[in-house]
Order: sequence, then C-alpha cells, then structure tokens
Amino acid sequence: MGNIITFTTDFGLRDPYQGAMKGVALSINPDARLVDITHLIEPCNILAGAFALDGAYSFYPRGTVHVGVVDPGVGGERNAVIIEAGGYFFVGPDNGLFSLITGRVGVDRVIKITNEGYFLNGVSSTFHGRDIFAPVAAHLSLGKDPSVFGVALSSEPVILTLPRPSTSDGRVTGEVIYIDSYGNAVTNIEKDALRGGEEVFTAVEVNGYTIDGIRKTYASVEAGEITALMGSFNLLEIAVNAGRADDRLGIRVGDRVILKRGRA
Amino acid sequence: MGNIITFTTDFGLRDPYQGAMKGVALSINPDARLVDITHLIEPCNILAGAFALDGAYSFYPRGTVHVGVVDPGVGGERNAVIIEAGGYFFVGPDNGLFSLITGRVGVDRVIKITNEGYFLNGVSSTFHGRDIFAPVAAHLSLGKDPSVFGVALSSEPVILTLPRPSTSDGRVTGEVIYIDSYGNAVTNIEKDALRGGEEVFTAVEVNGYTIDGIRKTYASVEAGEITALMGSFNLLEIAVNAGRADDRLGIRVGDRVILKRGRA
Amino acid sequence: MGNIITFTTDFGLRDPYQGAMKGVALSINPDARLVDITHLIEPCNILAGAFALDGAYSFYPRGTVHVGVVDPGVGGERNAVIIEAGGYFFVGPDNGLFSLITGRVGVDRVIKITNEGYFLNGVSSTFHGRDIFAPVAAHLSLGKDPSVFGVALSSEPVILTLPRPSTSDGRVTGEVIYIDSYGNAVTNIEKDALRGGEEVFTAVEVNGYTIDGIRKTYASVEAGEITALMGSFNLLEIAVNAGRADDRLGIRVGDRVILKRGRA
Repeated sequence: MGNIITFTTDFGLRDPYQGAMKGVALSINPDARLVDITHLIEPCNILAGAFALDGAYSFYPRGTVHVGVVDPGVGGERNAVIIEAGGYFFVGPDNGLFSLITGRVGVDRVIKITNEGYFLNGVSSTFHGRDIFAPVAAHLSLGKDPSVFGVALSSEPVILTLPRPSTSDGRVTGEVIYIDSYGNAVTNIEKDALRGGEEVFTAVEVNGYTIDGIRKTYASVEAGEITALMGSFNLLEIAVNAGRADDRLGIRVGDRVILKRGRA
Repeated sequence: MGNIITFTTDFGLRDPYQGAMKGVALSINPDARLVDITHLIEPCNILAGAFALDGAYSFYPRGTVHVGVVDPGVGGERNAVIIEAGGYFFVGPDNGLFSLITGRVGVDRVIKITNEGYFLNGVSSTFHGRDIFAPVAAHLSLGKDPSVFGVALSSEPVILTLPRPSTSDGRVTGEVIYIDSYGNAVTNIEKDALRGGEEVFTAVEVNGYTIDGIRKTYASVEAGEITALMGSFNLLEIAVNAGRADDRLGIRVGDRVILKRGRA
Repeated sequence: MGNIITFTTDFGLRDPYQGAMKGVALSINPDARLVDITHLIEPCNILAGAFALDGAYSFYPRGTVHVGVVDPGVGGERNAVIIEAGGYFFVGPDNGLFSLITGRVGVDRVIKITNEGYFLNGVSSTFHGRDIFAPVAAHLSLGKDPSVFGVALSSEPVILTLPRPSTSDGRVTGEVIYIDSYGNAVTNIEKDALRGGEEVFTAVEVNGYTIDGIRKTYASVEAGEITALMGSFNLLEIAVNAGRADDRLGIRVGDRVILKRGRA
C-alpha cells in the first residue's frame, strides 16, 4: 500500500495555503509521506498544471495519491473527484487537470466526492484544497476505498484538448505547448509519433530560424547555439545550450514548429 | 507525541540556509517529519511571517513544533523563546512573530532559551535558526520538556499590534493587511465580527470602487470582475475572478475598506 | 545507516523535473527521507551549486546521500560519479560541483557510474538527475556499496578553482564570491585565515565605501547602515542591517574587498 501523497497546485510558496493543506493531511495520516511536485503553477492555468502532473506522476510507486489543485471554479459547479487511473489515485477538481494522463492511460473509476463526513469541519467555499482534497487524499492514503467518499460517475472526466501535430508531404507541423524554467520550448511533437525516426528530419523551423536536425543532448552544440532535441518528456524541444531559447528566439506558447525531411 | 517540525522563515529557497537548518534537526532527531510552511516571507517582515504562521499552524496535529525565524534582531537583545500555546510549541525569536496566534489562544508557558548544552557547537551570532532554533525544536520533537532549555518568563511575549476595524453608524471600516500571491487583498475584517451577518452589507468600498455585497466564491462573478468574499482565513477579501485585485484596483497593504448596509 | 537523500539542483520549482526525480527515488526506497536543499541554483551555474552544497551538507548525519545536479554537460563527456568524502556520499556529474567540499575534506573514493542495471529504464540523454542520479542515490540509501555502481577512478574529481585572498603589508585583499537572497555579499575571506584575529582589522573597503571594522551581528548598526561581519559560512560578509547590500553599494560577484589594520 502506498503511503505517499503528492501535491501539484497554483498556491505559490509564499502564502500559508500549501502549508495548511499539508497540516490537514498529517492530522489525518501522521505517517503519510508528503511530496511537493510544485506549487508554482501559473495561477488558474489548468493546462500548465496538467503538464506538470503528467511529467511527474508515473515516476511514483503505484498506489500514490496525487493531489492536483488548479481550481479557478472552486465553490462553483465543477465536481470534486477521485480518479483512479494507471494504478494511481488523482484527487482534485474535475476540470481537465488530470486529462493529459487519463487521455493516455484511460480511466478505471471516477468518484464524485460528496461525503461531507470526510471533509474538514466548516468547509470554506474558496479553499477546497485544504478543506476537501487534502482530507480525502489522507484517508485514501490510509487505504480507504474511493467508493466511501461519494458516488461513481458514469460520465468521463473533463478533457482538455491539446493541439495535435499534423503531417503532410512528410512534414510534421506542431506547436510549442510549454516553456520550462530553463527557457526550453517544449512542443507537442512526440518522439514515438515520428514516422521513420527522428533521424530522417533534417531541418526544424521555428520563428524564422532553421535548426539543423534533431540532436541528442543540449551540449551537442556550442554554448549559446540553438538546438532541437527529444527532451525528457519524450517531446521535441527547442533549446539553447547554456542559454534560454524563449529569450533568444522569442518563442512563446502556441508558436508553430515545422519538421522537414531530406535536404534543406 | 508529535514528531512534526514545521518551518516558517524569510531565508529564501536559493541559499543553503534552510537546508542547513533541516540537516541540524535531522541530525538530532532522524525520525522528525519536517514540513516547510514557507521560506519566502519578505525579508525581515515580521508581520508577514506572523500571518503565514497564523494561517497554517492550527491545521497540524497538537504537539507539532512550529519553528518561525524572521529575525532582524538576531544576535542582539531580543530573547530566543519556546512558547507553548494552544497545544503547540513555537520556537523562534520573541519579536511578535507568534503574537497573532497567542493573541487569540493565549499563552501557556514562555521559556527563554538559555541552555547552551542544546545549541549547535560554535553558535554563530548571525544564524540562530540553524544554531539554536533547529536543535531546540528537534529536541522538543523528541519529547524533551520545554523547561530543560532555559528559564520560564513571567512576562508576556512581544505583541504585534494589528490595526482593528472600527464600526460606526452600521458601517465597518477596516483595512488591507495582506496581499496573497494570487493578488487577493485580505483585510482585517473578520467574518465572525460582522453583526447581523455578512448578508446585511450590500456595498464594499475600496480605492474608489464599490463592490456589490459579499459573495461566497471567486467564481460567483464573471472572469475579470471584482468581488468581495469571506476567504479561507475567515477574513474579508477583495478579489478579481481569475485575475489580480492588487493590479486591477491598485490595492496596497494599508488601504481602507468600508462595508455599508442597506441600499447603496 | 543513513536513510536521508538531499537534492541540490538548478531544476527550478515550477517544472515537474524535481518532482519526477523524487518519485524515482521513492519507487526504489519508499522509506528514504527526501530533503530539498535547493532547486533554485541559477541554471548551469556550477559554482553557485557548489556553494549551496558546501553550506549545507555537513549539517546532515553521516551517511547522508547528497545528490547535486547542475549539469550543463549532461549527455556529453563528463563522468557521472559517486564521491565518498567526509563520511557522506555525493552523487552527480563530475564537473566541480562537489569540489569546494572535497577540496577541504579530501576524497575517500570516486566511482564512475557505469552499471546500467541501476539506471531507470530508457535513460534519456537530457535528464540524468531523474534517470541515473536519483536511482543510484536511492540504492545507496538502501545500503548498497558504491562499488556496485561502476568502477573506481584513480584520478581526482574535477576541481573548481575559487579565487583566493592575498595578504601583503598586513592588508588582506579578497573578493565577493556570492550574493545571498538577503543581498548580503559573501567574500572569500575566511574567519580562520585572519592572522591576529578579526579584531585587528579596523577598516573594510569595498566599492569606494569604507566600513568601520568587523562586527558580530547585522543588528550591531542602525537599520539601513552598512556593516561587515563574519557570517554563518565563517566568511566575511558585507551587509546592510534590514536592507540589501547589493542594491545599496552596487556590489556584484567579483568585486574586490580589502581589509586594513590599525588606524584608518
């Protein structure tokens, strides 16, 4: 049985919000092992939260409880849910935050959280992370079955639709979906989706720049030079060795990236 | 017996200061469960530290040791103390950092920390967090009685005086005391102090803006709209749904907020 | 047996990188005690990483596994190593990141990590923190001998050469090597290296300012005033009480600091 609870939120690290949430979890399960994935998701940016969860969740032991709270609709109509998927428990708002994961591995069960017996006394309408998600996660980490917290939903959880790359005439056209804190621009072009392997693509075009093929490492070019490579998300990244691609190339989320085959 | 130690400091997250402090605690109590409330208190801002501690401490199990270090007077005349209050232990400088809590729940015991036998060898005059507070907290978490660390003080701990709201002609006049990392402006107007309930107040005035009553959730207005609500601190907040009230309304700590009854 | 693993990286706190790394460690050793020293080292700044590790490592219990990942050469020619030194295990790239420590306490053993049986399946060429260093650290924390992970190196690890202060005519000339998050300027002038004790130095010159001797505490001068003192690293610091020395004096890393004896 897993005893690990992770947290991915937009609460920031300056306010007492994430500290309060962890206290609630430890009050219910003093032996829980709490791990911060991040509390620095851009406020209310559900896609950025989905991306962070997707990049980290699978490295934890099966049975881990992953709490995600990027929840602009808190207190409104959106459901609070437990999603069982891929051997993990996901606890948070049903607003698409877990959908990059469930879109890939499917959903075993979705429970709408309704059983107030597991909520913190005096639930606020503005802080469900502390008042609902943390206590439910702590009880889950103690081995409670998800069914005790509410009712099974027959509908699918909310899906965020990410842009998909297109292929025509051997070209692959994708776009930047995330800029990481090194300034690397992560695209939606998956390593496994490249027909013929990444070697057949000899040019990467972005923002008027043409990059010479797909490399293996950041350090495969000189410091300050632009490169393209399959990064640790198994997605194509545009990077500058020992520098920031976002600043250097003016790259922003949504910018188009084109892979071309054969001679430039 | 609690085995949890929390940390609330202005050390930042970039320097080795908080990491050194945690190492000291683990060297004394390898089974301590260390939790960061925050290390991003604005340097030397005792009130901000007091607010963070007050917002988080009570969600932890009784017996938790809360270390607070916002300590501009380190090495000077201020006392190093253990304060027992509300079933918790607070360890840090006696400069008001714990006074929002003790002002509400009272003080059971204050020990001035003097017993150098529990200090790190070779105490520096600039880093009592690492050299005094962390080791004392670790020994407390092992079940040592506070009395072994020094002498009981008969005087009260230092108090920070927060501005209090005033009421006249049915109006309540308070002020902004904290801006959180979402840009929400938290005021000193307490939910429980509103005679007649929050429903009787139909207008909230701040910085030349008039807000239409007190809502339940951020999402009760359209995205980008201004709202007032009782937030998770049980204090009146001025917020912008999916936006920043501080930027949108130019709100700063100290700005006046007026609640009015009846027709606008 | 230590069961503690610390992390010092330049991964930032916004991306899933450090969260993924911790998941890998917990998947291998669910009882490991994970502690963040910092993930906010300036990207690719090996010296800043070395300084953070050096300021924190020795406060942990012997046997602690310290993972350091500031690794601009990831996937290139640099070795991945385990360094045993001073009773601790250091795991990371051999690029000087641990050399402030090994330069002082010496090296007991260096193992070049080559045994892929301990790597994460499908090692990426861009994220050795997650794929190599985290799993190796977790196995080390379970008590595995360093020798199982690869081959002993007879050569010394890579050394970062820090500027050393010089002494002539009783003057000591050093320089600023680090600015901490309070804006204090830390120099390379060690407390223990001052012949005659710090008391004999009556003037500290930096950036055209002359400071009156070496004090014991930040609060030994009025708020806003400049002071020099031996800080918690046992290195001379230039500071402003309740303010930022970097802003006030325009101090930057590399600026010269001169200690003078006798009458000004």
